[in-house]
Order: sequence, then structure tokens, then C-alpha cells
Amino acid sequence: MHYKATIRVTLRPSVLDPAGVAVRSGLQQLGYASVANVRIGKYIELELEADNDAEARHQVDRLCDQMLANPVIEVYKFEVVALEAARR
Amino acid sequence: MHYKATIRVTLRPSVLDPAGVAVRSGLQQLGYASVANVRIGKYIELELEADNDAEARHQVDRLCDQMLANPVIEVYKFEVVALEAARR
Repeated sequence: MHYKATIRVTLRPSVLDPAGVAVRSGLQQLGYASVANVRIGKYIELELEADNDAEARHQVDRLCDQMLANPVIEVYKFEVVALEAARR
Repeated sequence: MHYKATIRVTLRPSVLDPAGVAVRSGLQQLGYASVANVRIGKYIELELEADNDAEARHQVDRLCDQMLANPVIEVYKFEVVALEAARR
């Protein structure tokens, strides 16, 4: 079956986020004074083939662990939805 | 009131995604042969103060348009949830 995964990779809460700090000060200069705790991460969409939901989730978990996220400083969350029968 | 926004900024479908292409070939080399259509975007979390939901959504929409997304090549989606009464 054909699946679509949406993955969010973010820095661990304990890790300083310089990009987030820079964006926050930029937004504050634009007048968004109340904006706080800006955290910037990666948002990844991809499609893959798998026999069933569990196998799709297993593949996505493994590829996040192996390549898309650095487990030392990042955490990841993902959703997997079946699109339709495998593309002919 | 105190709100949390989660924002996803992605390239317009018509825009080539070199980072996505690179990640896909990397994943395929790792053995994930069926992975396709990899698209890489930004995932942003932030907090802000607003009088009500509508105003919070309006602020987030404006700050996405003004700073977080490049409307020429990117589109954005966001969710806004009330956290609790404004922090004292």
C-alpha cells in the first residue's frame, strides 16, 4: 500500500535554539511584542510503500532515527496515513 | 490570553525541492527504496498573547506573511491553541 508520512523534527527542549532566538527578536522588531519561545524545526513530507500501517510506521521511525533526526539534540514526531492501493 | 501556534512552511508544489531530492537519494541508499516525493519545510512553534482566538489567528497569519514564509515560493499552515489565562 501507498502511504504518506508527515514528520516534525525539533530540538530537544534543553537545547538552545539560536534560530528561534533570532526569529523572535525579528518578530518583536516588527511589532509582535508578545511573541515568545520561538522554536524552529524541520517539517518533512514523504511517501512510501508498505504492506500495512504497522510496517509503514516502523519504516518511518527507522528512517527518522537513521537520517532525518540527530537523536543527541533532536526529537521527532510523525503521522502516517494510507493514501491508496500501491500505485500501478 | 496565552496562545501557542504551530506553523508549517513548505515550498509551493510547483517549486523544485533540492533538499528533498537529496534526502530521498540518501534514504534510498540506506535501503528505503520505495521512499518518494520527499519535501522539506520549516516547522515553527511560538507563543503569543492575544485577547481572543480570532486575534491570535490574525496575528499568526500576519507574522507568517511578513516574516516566516516567502509568499513567492512558500505556503504556510498553522494551528493556534489557547494555553491558559495570560501568564501573571
